Amino acid sequence: MADFRPAIGDEAQFLEDLFEHGLLLRTGTPGVYGRGSLFEDVRERFDALVTRAAASDESESLRFPPLLARHHLEATGYVGYFPHLAGTIFAFDGSEGDAVEQAERAARHDDWSEYQSMTDLVLVPAACYPVYQAIAARGPLPAGGTTIDAGGAYVFRREPAGDPARLQMFHQREMVRIGKPDAVAAWRDTWRDRAIEVLRRVGLDADVDVASDPFFGRPGRMLAANQRAQELKFEVTIPIASPVPTAVASFNYHQEHFVQSFGIELADGGVAHTACLGFGLERITLGLLRKHGLDPQQWPTAVRDELWAL
Amino acid sequence: MADFRPAIGDEAQFLEDLFEHGLLLRTGTPGVYGRGSLFEDVRERFDALVTRAAASDESESLRFPPLLARHHLEATGYVGYFPHLAGTIFAFDGSEGDAVEQAERAARHDDWSEYQSMTDLVLVPAACYPVYQAIAARGPLPAGGTTIDAGGAYVFRREPAGDPARLQMFHQREMVRIGKPDAVAAWRDTWRDRAIEVLRRVGLDADVDVASDPFFGRPGRMLAANQRAQELKFEVTIPIASPVPTAVASFNYHQEHFVQSFGIELADGGVAHTACLGFGLERITLGLLRKHGLDPQQWPTAVRDELWAL
Repeated sequence: MADFRPAIGDEAQFLEDLFEHGLLLRTGTPGVYGRGSLFEDVRERFDALVTRAAASDESESLRFPPLLARHHLEATGYVGYFPHLAGTIFAFDGSEGDAVEQAERAARHDDWSEYQSMTDLVLVPAACYPVYQAIAARGPLPAGGTTIDAGGAYVFRREPAGDPARLQMFHQREMVRIGKPDAVAAWRDTWRDRAIEVLRRVGLDADVDVASDPFFGRPGRMLAANQRAQELKFEVTIPIASPVPTAVASFNYHQEHFVQSFGIELADGGVAHTACLGFGLERITLGLLRKHGLDPQQWPTAVRDELWAL
Repeated sequence: MADFRPAIGDEAQFLEDLFEHGLLLRTGTPGVYGRGSLFEDVRERFDALVTRAAASDESESLRFPPLLARHHLEATGYVGYFPHLAGTIFAFDGSEGDAVEQAERAARHDDWSEYQSMTDLVLVPAACYPVYQAIAARGPLPAGGTTIDAGGAYVFRREPAGDPARLQMFHQREMVRIGKPDAVAAWRDTWRDRAIEVLRRVGLDADVDVASDPFFGRPGRMLAANQRAQELKFEVTIPIASPVPTAVASFNYHQEHFVQSFGIELADGGVAHTACLGFGLERITLGLLRKHGLDPQQWPTAVRDELWAL
């Protein structure tokens, strides 16, 4: 079982407050919470604000369920980079007798794992993963490449924690740029600046810094150092309830990684790169509730106007 | 591996047409598809039509991620009734050495299942399951009970198939009524009639019939017969691309099943029952595309007015 990260600082109290006000609902397991209508309204309003900020991208809108073909996850190297975060789908594949034994164990809350077999499906680990495969399947891209808006999609990270900002299942509002290296790098940098501006407009104290992914183990430390040295990842942070600010958006330049994993090509034969950005919609919602209070009716007019205008 | 159900009738051709028009996108695995913006627009518009039809319920809106505590699934008996449909979440829980071996196998697309352990999470099998647990956790209900709108939530069924109407991950628009037996049964029947009316308003040839759940194995046949005899389940069907009409909504009276599984109580000490209804939003979207054509701009004005009005 993955290690549970206990709450620190004000995290536990903030989570209790969220439960008490019906903003989040307990489900019996850490990092998987139901949501009241007020929480969802704020999340969707911020999502809509990102949509407005993205208008000039003229992106194509695609949506994907939170499952990915296991074969595609394997092709990206994710299992090596982030084995501790991945979730795989298992299912029953036995006889009627096995089903009876499995059911009896399950009813007693005993171990029934031996009756479950690995399927060809995994949980989506980042909302951009299904995009690369779908774009590759369409065939070569026009020379200008493409920009995909993957919406606010549920993604999974195996990180049970007491911090309400560290969920096992949460919405990433994700966009992906595929095209010539210069254009892709410029798009990533534009969005990094745009994101800070959007977050500050709703009263959040957003800062940006070079960052790295949580690569696994000792070899992962070298990967992370290399990622930082090349400035391939930026994160925007805001204060929530932790002792240090929490990352709420990331801006990632993958160079040729996904292009090679999935066989993405430009029609003119040029080299394609990819970049993506993701807003952590629950974290931003939590940041707004923490900063402006648990009752959005009482938020500053300027913030309400940004979110509830239109 | 679960048996793949090959397409029959016009199912395969319809799926090809949906891919060709960009309404659905291939993901490399059957029953898990990306969606173009047109498909999503129709799905969301029908969802909004249900919301309007539900206004008089004055329900409370709650939302849940597509994961459930395994303990809760076990408590409902689902593992015994539907072992063939359930999906469980496994994750890595090994050493750095295990991680290296797992990654190497995954990169070769070899079997790496031995490094995955069962977690405390499963995929949500029906959108009402998280509701019972959340309501029980709040404590006893007022005498009138409650009505919950769980929105259009992703649910999982392990049924790989060639029929585009049989998805492994799809949106159920789900509502739940908890209260005194008479009130719950009456609500279920009202919605059964209301659903037919809503579907006919958008030009679909909706019929209703007594139905049963796909209980597993030989004992399951008796459960199903009993469910039919007591008229605990109704399904509304429409023609899509299969030789026979497809179920697109179901109306289920659970009597005391979930109340006992989760310990739901009424404050006045009276007996509580539950009922739920679910619209299969992708199936209804497919039914609309099949009936009125693949270009919603060309649909009959009366249908467009119902969906795109407001």
